[in-house]
Amino acid sequence: MGAEFDLIARYFSRPVPPHFLGGGDDCALLPVEPGLQLATSTDLLVEGRHFFSGSEPRALGHKALAVNLSDLAAMGAQPLACVLGLSLPSVDAKWLAGFSNGFYALADLAQCPLVGGDTTRSMQGICISVTVFGQVDPAKALRRSAAQVGDDIWVSGTLGAAYVALLLQLGEIDRDDAMLAATRAAMEQPTPPWQFAVSLAGVARAALDISDGLAQDLGHILDASHCGAQLTMSALPLDPAIYSLPESVKKQAALAGGDVYQLCFTAAQQQRTTIIELAAKATTPVTCIGKIIAEKGLFVQEESGSIVPCSTSGFDHFSD
Amino acid sequence: MGAEFDLIARYFSRPVPPHFLGGGDDCALLPVEPGLQLATSTDLLVEGRHFFSGSEPRALGHKALAVNLSDLAAMGAQPLACVLGLSLPSVDAKWLAGFSNGFYALADLAQCPLVGGDTTRSMQGICISVTVFGQVDPAKALRRSAAQVGDDIWVSGTLGAAYVALLLQLGEIDRDDAMLAATRAAMEQPTPPWQFAVSLAGVARAALDISDGLAQDLGHILDASHCGAQLTMSALPLDPAIYSLPESVKKQAALAGGDVYQLCFTAAQQQRTTIIELAAKATTPVTCIGKIIAEKGLFVQEESGSIVPCSTSGFDHFSD
Repeated sequence: MGAEFDLIARYFSRPVPPHFLGGGDDCALLPVEPGLQLATSTDLLVEGRHFFSGSEPRALGHKALAVNLSDLAAMGAQPLACVLGLSLPSVDAKWLAGFSNGFYALADLAQCPLVGGDTTRSMQGICISVTVFGQVDPAKALRRSAAQVGDDIWVSGTLGAAYVALLLQLGEIDRDDAMLAATRAAMEQPTPPWQFAVSLAGVARAALDISDGLAQDLGHILDASHCGAQLTMSALPLDPAIYSLPESVKKQAALAGGDVYQLCFTAAQQQRTTIIELAAKATTPVTCIGKIIAEKGLFVQEESGSIVPCSTSGFDHFSD
Repeated sequence: MGAEFDLIARYFSRPVPPHFLGGGDDCALLPVEPGLQLATSTDLLVEGRHFFSGSEPRALGHKALAVNLSDLAAMGAQPLACVLGLSLPSVDAKWLAGFSNGFYALADLAQCPLVGGDTTRSMQGICISVTVFGQVDPAKALRRSAAQVGDDIWVSGTLGAAYVALLLQLGEIDRDDAMLAATRAAMEQPTPPWQFAVSLAGVARAALDISDGLAQDLGHILDASHCGAQLTMSALPLDPAIYSLPESVKKQAALAGGDVYQLCFTAAQQQRTTIIELAAKATTPVTCIGKIIAEKGLFVQEESGSIVPCSTSGFDHFSD
């Protein structure tokens, strides 16, 4: 191979754990524990679409893996390994060092080693493809279709910070450097609660990760489970960094803000104590925000006490 | 989701076999048989780099999956499932119909169902990411490092047609419409021998798929297995469609021509009868082309009888 290609390979050639075959062969081999199934998800991140041109490469490496770990968390699956496809317009040593460091740091944290990949020159722009592998007992996997009437609805972490960071960067709300400083990590380096998620398998019922916004994503659970939900507006765990914004912006951020990469899940009321204990053990904040109801649709009880319907339609990946 | 997104989803929403969870949830779940390991590989195909702009979409859908099935074949792994990431500059119903038909036709043939994916708008150009999953007994997997001195070296299928089709399309050899017609399917719609490959697990020793050219790819086996090889030039199974070309072009096509997606593998001499029977059963042509030797390096015995060293360095993905 040529010198340039060797340069790239150097950034992604950290040793693979010995029980995987790893990047040196045609395929990586992954052991899946007896009784468990492989859980897999894939995401594409495209320059100019999912991240700004000129994004900090270390944060980008982190986020490319994080959005996929979030999908594993949403199934209650334990991370096993990942593969990376990287299409680059040029070979930039500084960019590659930053990107690979960010990617590996999160892979180490989540014990989700990089075991293979493909690197190629693109004609224009950066295209990042990550596929993650996890394992889960299929009887305990957190499926979107498993919510039952009477279930509590929970979210992990906080809501709205990534959305507000985006609005600030786009200039769609008034410049506030302190707020941007306090929110941009949520947008650029989300850290999904994979450890807490694994402990929810067999405890929670339905789950997914909040990527497009709470209302829209919860809507997928409601559709798949043939039920409705009622949320309590005052219970939604807004990120403290955005408390000073107008109520209307905060409501929008909480219900429609995407890029959260935290869990929304349902569980029987009997599980409340267990869930709070598991969250404490994983040091993941968790909040009960409403309940599953028989009536189809999403409803929000506002501070006034009135209950209003809430749209579950949202962002279209192909609208500009 | 918006109307455009629904349009795309329609082309990739064929039913998933019931033992997979499939595209409706955060992850697909894949059962791996007890005692087997998951084999996985990922490839990126970028417009203008791996395929011409304006490529026939059905052939492209076929090839995107074929190059990944080829990696499974190279491990002797049985195809299980695949996921697709597709980044498109616009929503083109005719293109999507062709691409998805080509992809699904090969997925059906290889019993490798599409179980998940991600579709997004790109800023420029098409970027296709496919990750395949297979299963294999790790004790029988065909590893690059397993060649032993004295092994026969085999290739499946024929060599050179895809390379000649490319030269014809680029105008680098004289126009010959009949030869282009006879070779372009090899370039545009390669069909890796996955069935034969699965039967080789536990029979052959080292294997890989020929993507960059026989000499370069065999070089990876030699490096990993710490040995050398001697090939017999007259034994190389050239595609009959290119017989009329000058000897120098044919030699180049056989040794350096890429995009073959057939197997190069080594096996003990005692396995000759078994290999020929397995190939016949799978209706895959197979040819013994040389032997593994202790002396490092790749050597070719020419028609004259003289033995000459052959370079194993080749195509650089990042050179233009």
